Amino acid sequence: MYKKIKRFLVGTPLGNNALDEEKYGITWGLPILASDAISSVAYAGQEMLMVLIPAVGILAYGQLSIVSFGIIGLLFILMLSYRQTIDNYPNGGGAFIVSKENLGVHAGVTAGAALSIDYILTVAVSISSGVEQITSAFPQLRQHYGSIIISVILVLVMMVGNLRGIRESSKVFGLPAYAFMFAIFAMLITGFYKVMVLHYVPTVPDLKAAVEPLSLFLLLKAFSSGCTALTGIEAVSNAVPNFKSPSTKHAKTVLLLLSFIILILFGGTSILANMYRVVPGDKAILILMAEQVFGVGFMYYFVTATTFIILVLAANTAFSGFPMLISVMAKEGYAPRQLCMRGDRLAYDNGIYLLTIVSIILIIAFKASVTSLIGLYAIGVFISFTLSQTGMFVKWCRDKGPHWHLKAALNGFGAVITAIAVVIIAFEKFQQGAWLVVVLIPIMIFLILKVERHYKSVKKQLRIKPEEYDDYDMSVDKYRNRVIVPIESINKSSVRALKYAKTISDNIIAFNVAIDEDAANELRMKYEKLNAGVPLTIEFSPFREIVDPLLRFIASEEYDYKKGDIITVILPQFKVKKGWHKFLHNNTEFFIRQELLKHKHIVVSTIPLQLKDDKLILNS
Amino acid sequence: MYKKIKRFLVGTPLGNNALDEEKYGITWGLPILASDAISSVAYAGQEMLMVLIPAVGILAYGQLSIVSFGIIGLLFILMLSYRQTIDNYPNGGGAFIVSKENLGVHAGVTAGAALSIDYILTVAVSISSGVEQITSAFPQLRQHYGSIIISVILVLVMMVGNLRGIRESSKVFGLPAYAFMFAIFAMLITGFYKVMVLHYVPTVPDLKAAVEPLSLFLLLKAFSSGCTALTGIEAVSNAVPNFKSPSTKHAKTVLLLLSFIILILFGGTSILANMYRVVPGDKAILILMAEQVFGVGFMYYFVTATTFIILVLAANTAFSGFPMLISVMAKEGYAPRQLCMRGDRLAYDNGIYLLTIVSIILIIAFKASVTSLIGLYAIGVFISFTLSQTGMFVKWCRDKGPHWHLKAALNGFGAVITAIAVVIIAFEKFQQGAWLVVVLIPIMIFLILKVERHYKSVKKQLRIKPEEYDDYDMSVDKYRNRVIVPIESINKSSVRALKYAKTISDNIIAFNVAIDEDAANELRMKYEKLNAGVPLTIEFSPFREIVDPLLRFIASEEYDYKKGDIITVILPQFKVKKGWHKFLHNNTEFFIRQELLKHKHIVVSTIPLQLKDDKLILNS
Repeated sequence: MYKKIKRFLVGTPLGNNALDEEKYGITWGLPILASDAISSVAYAGQEMLMVLIPAVGILAYGQLSIVSFGIIGLLFILMLSYRQTIDNYPNGGGAFIVSKENLGVHAGVTAGAALSIDYILTVAVSISSGVEQITSAFPQLRQHYGSIIISVILVLVMMVGNLRGIRESSKVFGLPAYAFMFAIFAMLITGFYKVMVLHYVPTVPDLKAAVEPLSLFLLLKAFSSGCTALTGIEAVSNAVPNFKSPSTKHAKTVLLLLSFIILILFGGTSILANMYRVVPGDKAILILMAEQVFGVGFMYYFVTATTFIILVLAANTAFSGFPMLISVMAKEGYAPRQLCMRGDRLAYDNGIYLLTIVSIILIIAFKASVTSLIGLYAIGVFISFTLSQTGMFVKWCRDKGPHWHLKAALNGFGAVITAIAVVIIAFEKFQQGAWLVVVLIPIMIFLILKVERHYKSVKKQLRIKPEEYDDYDMSVDKYRNRVIVPIESINKSSVRALKYAKTISDNIIAFNVAIDEDAANELRMKYEKLNAGVPLTIEFSPFREIVDPLLRFIASEEYDYKKGDIITVILPQFKVKKGWHKFLHNNTEFFIRQELLKHKHIVVSTIPLQLKDDKLILNS
Repeated sequence: MYKKIKRFLVGTPLGNNALDEEKYGITWGLPILASDAISSVAYAGQEMLMVLIPAVGILAYGQLSIVSFGIIGLLFILMLSYRQTIDNYPNGGGAFIVSKENLGVHAGVTAGAALSIDYILTVAVSISSGVEQITSAFPQLRQHYGSIIISVILVLVMMVGNLRGIRESSKVFGLPAYAFMFAIFAMLITGFYKVMVLHYVPTVPDLKAAVEPLSLFLLLKAFSSGCTALTGIEAVSNAVPNFKSPSTKHAKTVLLLLSFIILILFGGTSILANMYRVVPGDKAILILMAEQVFGVGFMYYFVTATTFIILVLAANTAFSGFPMLISVMAKEGYAPRQLCMRGDRLAYDNGIYLLTIVSIILIIAFKASVTSLIGLYAIGVFISFTLSQTGMFVKWCRDKGPHWHLKAALNGFGAVITAIAVVIIAFEKFQQGAWLVVVLIPIMIFLILKVERHYKSVKKQLRIKPEEYDDYDMSVDKYRNRVIVPIESINKSSVRALKYAKTISDNIIAFNVAIDEDAANELRMKYEKLNAGVPLTIEFSPFREIVDPLLRFIASEEYDYKKGDIITVILPQFKVKKGWHKFLHNNTEFFIRQELLKHKHIVVSTIPLQLKDDKLILNS
């Protein structure tokens, strides 16, 4: 049943050899990795205007373009720096790997933690903001926790899409991204044409004049609001191994294309907003511009619909990037090992599940409110940008390859710029929630290092050194295997356990816990009749305990034994036909097992007894 | 930690030999078993007045006495019938046992089901009505689910008190019952004295005259509201074994005393209510009478306080009766076996837990509202009264001992009267919720019979017949024990498993699931170096499954084998130092175990490896 549902949702399993076919080229890699960055076109300009208009009024539109192109400049610096990173780290991992190799474990883990948090927030923020768009159009959807429910459903849809594997998800989620790009591009062309060729005069909004002088502080505030546009870049460098060969070349091309698309769409909408002087309010500026440019018609609705979709799809970038990042961390022992296992469709299923669960918790905790979530966002990715750029800078200075001065300068400049951005964002958003991220990152670093220590310790405990192999002692002469068979009463199940015991050792004791003398005598009598050839020990339990006397007996036997010996305890276990039948048995086997396995040199052998169908037995 | 808290709450364990000391005599048996019956004094008269006053106005008071003495008459019939039952069934069990032995399994199970439901309802109703009294005095307690929270806390207090054992709980919960009896008795004496000797004239309430003629229908409705006063009787017959020896004599005396106490208190308050003409409204009639009799002073508050306490304590009768009833049913295989095991303090802990959980669920589901719960109440106990009386009637007619005519007549009359009561209550309360009980009882009967079938079937499957004992085949020659050791990699843990395997059989296979050729070759190379003397089989898993290839391999081996042979699979299992470390390992051992134990002739041996503290290992 469960398997059938899974097959229906996820599809048939793919063999290991299908891995190459699952990878994407430029055509489908671009939309899936770029959706986060591109989606920022839908809100970054808006966020900036909302900071600027109340302060400087009509002057805001001029400043918008300045700040926008500042951000685009930063984007190009990052793009060029990351192209260098991709060349040097073709196996993906981005900031985590780069920082770890060049700046040490702590820097790497910091980048990994910061980035993981940001990926999770990407899902929560994008989905919530997409849903905010729908519910602003249909307010009745907000009732009965509607926003939360729709958000959770969308996360689950995205989860299933991604579990279906890279190839399918890139197509399913890629098409709408292209549709959005087309919609905005069409709006830009038409909009410019209308103003410049047809000399359309937009209505000038009734904005009050500047109430405060334009300050650097204000520009920085707008800048930090707009920086969310850049969080998509890291995803490309994390996902290099997902590209068809030559993967680095493809990834670099995607990064380049991504930057030019952002340049055109983000820069273009900034200029268009300046021309049409739209004021963000109940409706988003993209929608307001579409209204003026196209009038309320097909294209207006097309822009509205694709805007909603791209906001939701931005979450998909995290669904591509996070499982890759965490699998790289898991492979190196910095995260639970299960996170680097590929699932049925060769995706990192466990990473996808983890992302789903945590982002759903976030959405519920913050009631799917973008205003509450946005404050937490973007600081993580800029921390990892800084670390990764610094790492590359250090690498160039150390390795000194051809043109290393130029390369180091580029990455160094990127590091300085993003470090400044971290300070600005942290400062501007601290009270809006960034403090939470500032607290969470050290906690995650601590946990990650604990995980790593544990794996290292296990490895050390299990490892057989190469030089030990040849003369490893595989003889078992010194082992003596003593067997204890706890029996509750004489029945077919306990007889089966005794017979099994006789096949594995000659040194067996049957053991019973009796509540009183009468019960003990009855059992002893029956047991003698059996002629089992195995001695029986009976302990009395005045306090009606069953497990403790057995444990005490075994402990005393263990104590008597010389080092290296082993005790096998044979426990019969009923396997019932129907789940609820379990509650009708005492399940002492389970408790005994749990306790015994804490001891050294004890092996617990479970001998199952399949109970037959009640009807079958009673009617025979 | 958990154990310490338990010891603090429940006390030190008692040995089996303390059982006799735990039992109660008349002094403490009376209040604990009578509290349910006595508590009805606090509400039954009230309930009847609330039915009668709106219909017949001032005439209600006369009718109250008539109906009350009707109910008291029924009580005496039941008391006499149950004294006969106790004599014949000194081991307790009441209606369940009596019906089962005389009317057959289905009647017994019906009585058991009906009674269990009523015991659970007793807890929910009494606690809720007690809490309703407090919250009517302090309405601010109703905020923030206050009633539900207080009710749940009271149930938990009662649970802990009863887990402490019969003796302690009978004293803790017995004293307040005596205090209540004293309070009401004092009120009766003072009240009668004031009217008859001091010629006090109570204010006559402003009641309208009769709006409808007094009908049988109305009397019956009042009767069914008052019948809740009788539900405590069954508890005495269930609890016979809890009495000190001679237990039947003590139980019968308690039943007699109980009846006289009810006669005096219930009959007395009916007459007093008639004299003082109190009208139930915001305050309960007992409180209103206390106000007129004593004035607002110490005794007024004493009556108020003990009334609240006795309502809550009525639940304690269920805490005495239910675990006894269900343990008797469990002993005979009609309920999960765990319910007949005595806990640390010789109480039937699991029955107490079950009662606690279900009644808390009921309280939460019905929001601690007496009005919603009362409708469900009383029908169950009257069904069991009827069955038990009928059972006794059948017994006398069959056994024909001395005075059997008289005895049969008494029980037969009881059966007819209670059968009529069942019909009246079911009819009157059907829409108020009794329909739910009418639906629930058959469902419970169905489940109980399913449980009984399962135990019977298990017993049949396990049983070795006496005649089979002497020549039971304990030889193991025909058994061959083949051992499979699944290994993931070559490490100290897998080597340990191999060594253990060599102590139990000469027929061993090491088994590995490889994802690709490279991994397989590396493992094979290392394994050969070990010189383990055990052949290695490697299977490829193109779909990255680990468990399934192993299961397929074992299944094929099992298939090859001749009947009677056994396969032992040895699974190493990490035992980690810290709970959360579990999440860092794949826990494949668990899944393999679950799957393997479904197969026949497979024994799963778990060989634990205690991981050492990470710090210890890494610093060495």
